[in-house]
This record gives sequence, structure tokens and C-alpha cells, in this order.
Amino acid sequence: MTAHSLPTALPSPLILHEDPVSGNCYKIRLTAALLDIPIERRFYDITKGETRTERFLAEVDANGRIPVLQVGERFLPESNAACFYLADGSDLIPSGRFERAAMLRWMFFEQYQHEPNIATMRYWLHVLGEANLSDEQRGLMPMKRSGGEAALALMDRHLARRDWFVGDACSLADIVLFAYTNVAHEGGFSLDEYDAVRGWIRRMRALPRFAAM
Amino acid sequence: MTAHSLPTALPSPLILHEDPVSGNCYKIRLTAALLDIPIERRFYDITKGETRTERFLAEVDANGRIPVLQVGERFLPESNAACFYLADGSDLIPSGRFERAAMLRWMFFEQYQHEPNIATMRYWLHVLGEANLSDEQRGLMPMKRSGGEAALALMDRHLARRDWFVGDACSLADIVLFAYTNVAHEGGFSLDEYDAVRGWIRRMRALPRFAAM
Repeated sequence: MTAHSLPTALPSPLILHEDPVSGNCYKIRLTAALLDIPIERRFYDITKGETRTERFLAEVDANGRIPVLQVGERFLPESNAACFYLADGSDLIPSGRFERAAMLRWMFFEQYQHEPNIATMRYWLHVLGEANLSDEQRGLMPMKRSGGEAALALMDRHLARRDWFVGDACSLADIVLFAYTNVAHEGGFSLDEYDAVRGWIRRMRALPRFAAM
Repeated sequence: MTAHSLPTALPSPLILHEDPVSGNCYKIRLTAALLDIPIERRFYDITKGETRTERFLAEVDANGRIPVLQVGERFLPESNAACFYLADGSDLIPSGRFERAAMLRWMFFEQYQHEPNIATMRYWLHVLGEANLSDEQRGLMPMKRSGGEAALALMDRHLARRDWFVGDACSLADIVLFAYTNVAHEGGFSLDEYDAVRGWIRRMRALPRFAAM
């Protein structure tokens, strides 16, 4: 990977409102680490409802979710939007028009087909624990499992002939897909049959300034 | 709305592989209409599995989904990525760094909290028909309904003090959220209590070059 051009004119403070257990929060920390952008961190425990308090809803996010990136006095929810904000103007976003849209394609795929299956399974099995799940959650597990497998299979086919999701370098598409793929085993997903995905994970971990979850 | 600066250097052909019943496909047509960009259309019937044929999977999209925007010889899945491609360089994308990320925030929200609830309910009730649903689909309906209501309530609170989702003009955030909000009644959602959403829908319909679904 070539050195990143540093984005200019970032307001301070940059504060990440987050729960360290969340892969959506980790994406933002990884983007900041790769770009060498310092961010402050504020911690909330989602299992204790700390993002649904009156104060959080009024001051941080009316949607009651994390991560939220605070930029000066303004608040930016949605993990992939926060990654885009930090990386805007850097070479983590391709300069070609088609490639930029192709990067976003994989970022929308991540939020539509990957995260709702793989991250949700991981949250249920690894964070809440299988014994604590509701009947409704148990009933949804087969659908989540097959959806997650389909997402991993699509990624594996795509990576079979290329090192990175878009173009010839790491972009935000790789970063946002890495977050929950790297801990997919905690959701009961095995990567054993996805050779190309495992090779890509090794390349991600070898990036300069890479930060582990 | 001010006149849009036309994006430059769009390759031809621009072909939208779509099903006219899909709001995700309509988003792309609406973006193209507002920007006065001509696109060709190829039609597939998703209820007949026409996006799961061997040929479609090999030539258009290995994920078996529409819409896909064909740009010359390349293919771009994910509706919101296709909208971004068409609008890149136009004033449908804010020029400010924070505003650009805030636009993406609402686009990710649309794919994560709005479309999976409101579009899915509309597909089940309006396209497939309630009598044809599986027990699994019926079982998911209460969750989809409450998720859709939460999305509409959040939009209504946000629009209560502003005309557009980001800044002071229509952006892609408005376009992608408009697609299924405008037909939410077909999914059993009433907009009667969402005054701000209804006002915003009227503003959307009054845009120069607006194209109906």
C-alpha cells in the first residue's frame, strides 16, 4: 500500500462514541489508525442500554445507536459514513469515478447482506450468549446463517482473482468488510472453505499502521 | 433547487438492468431524470426468477440481484452506489466534507433500517400478495412493521426543522429515501402521523425534471 495523503482541515475534537465489542466501531478506529488520525474515545455498554438513555438520545443520536463520530459540535451516525468522513481526500477512497462507486457498492453490500447476518450472529452467540437468546432470535438463526454464508461466498469469488475489493490497493471497502469477517468465527462461521478471504485477511493484517480489534 | 452541473465523461452505454416494480431501481431512474442523464433499460421479472438464471449470474451480477447499472462493459450493483456514480460531480452530492458524509449516513440508514422493513413489507403485501406468504414471512411481519415505523419516525423528527435531509437542497439522501417512503402505503404503512415526511414528499414531487415511479 502506498502512503496515504493526509486529509486536510479535520476539526477537533474528533470523538468516537463507541462500544469496543462492536465491529462497526472498530471499522472507524481502523480507518483512523491507517490514516494516522488521532481520535478520542467515549465508551458505552450496549448490553446495558447505555445508548438508549435520555441523555444519549438527546445529545448524541436520536436513533440510540453507536458508533457515532463527533466532529466538533456535530454528530455523524452510521459506521460507514464515519469511515468515509475520515478518509475523504485520502487514497483509501479511489480517485476514479467508477472505482469510487464500486467501493461504495461493497460498503452498501456490507450493511445490507454481511453485517445483518454475520454481526448479528456474533452478537447473539458471542456477546449475549446462546443460552440468553429469545425464541424469536433462535428462529431467525437459520436465515442469518445462510445469509452470512452467501455473503462470504460472494466475497470469496470476488477475491479469487484480486488482492483487494476495488482496484489494486486497500480501500474503505476492504476496511468495512474486514471488521466482522475477521471475527466471523465468533458468530459460528468458519472461513476454512474461503481461501481467498483468508489470504485477504492476511494482507489486511500486514498493512502499515494496522490496528487489531 | 438550483440547476445541476452535469457530470462529465459518462461512458456509454449506460444500461439499467431492472424490474420496474422495484423502488431500488426507481432511485436510479429518478437520479438520472433529475440530472437529465439518458439511460437505457433492460427489464427482468424478479417474481419469475429472471435475475437468478445462469446467464444473469454470469454476465450481469453473481449476486443475482437487481438493480445493476451497466457502465460500458462494467457492472455496478447496489442501488445507492449506482446513484452515487451518476451524481458524482453534480450538486446532488454536497461539496462540504461533513455534509457529504452526512448524506451517506442517510443512504446507509436507508439500506439498513428503512429498505429491509418498508420495501420488504411492500414486496410481500403489494407484489407477492398476503395470501401467498410463507409462515416464516408472516412471522417476521411484526418486526418489519415496528422497524419501518421507527425509521419513518426518525425521518419525521429530522425533517421537522429542515426541508431536506442534508443542507438546504435535495441530495441523494432525499432521493434514495423517497423511493420506498413514497409507496410505503403499499407495505401497509400510513404517513398520516408524519406531517414533516408528507411535506418533504410534496417538495420532492415538485422538483424540476421529477419522474414518477
